Amino acid sequence: MARVIVDVMPKPEILDPQGKAVTGALKRLGFDGLTVRQGKRFEVDVEGDLTDERLDQVREAAEKLLANTVIEAFDVRVEQ
Amino acid sequence: MARVIVDVMPKPEILDPQGKAVTGALKRLGFDGLTVRQGKRFEVDVEGDLTDERLDQVREAAEKLLANTVIEAFDVRVEQ
Repeated sequence: MARVIVDVMPKPEILDPQGKAVTGALKRLGFDGLTVRQGKRFEVDVEGDLTDERLDQVREAAEKLLANTVIEAFDVRVEQ
Repeated sequence: MARVIVDVMPKPEILDPQGKAVTGALKRLGFDGLTVRQGKRFEVDVEGDLTDERLDQVREAAEKLLANTVIEAFDVRVEQ
């Protein structure tokens, strides 16, 4: 069993209303000078050996389902 | 300007309905043998130098606002 991490973040040019809300809330709580962007983190447990093919399959899954590639960028990496 | 990453994941003993939905959708799309847990990823840009104090402040923000520590675990790390 191998674990692959998929990080999905809004693209830099895309507005991030969740991040903006968090940034505002932090300021109101007294945390100054912090700017937040919010995305998603997926921990994908892969059955069996993590071959290159299996990793490509996770990349395909990220592109098709985990990220909306019109507005989000994703990064796939094997957890050490 | 330093960047700190805060990962927030549902605790292992907590049900993760989003992750379950994604796992089911992947199976229906033909991606077999993948089990997913879904959490959040925050990219926190910290103004000025990243001192130990500033990093502690981000940890406090994570505990107070970014994570619901009853059901979620969080991890804070400086992006390399």
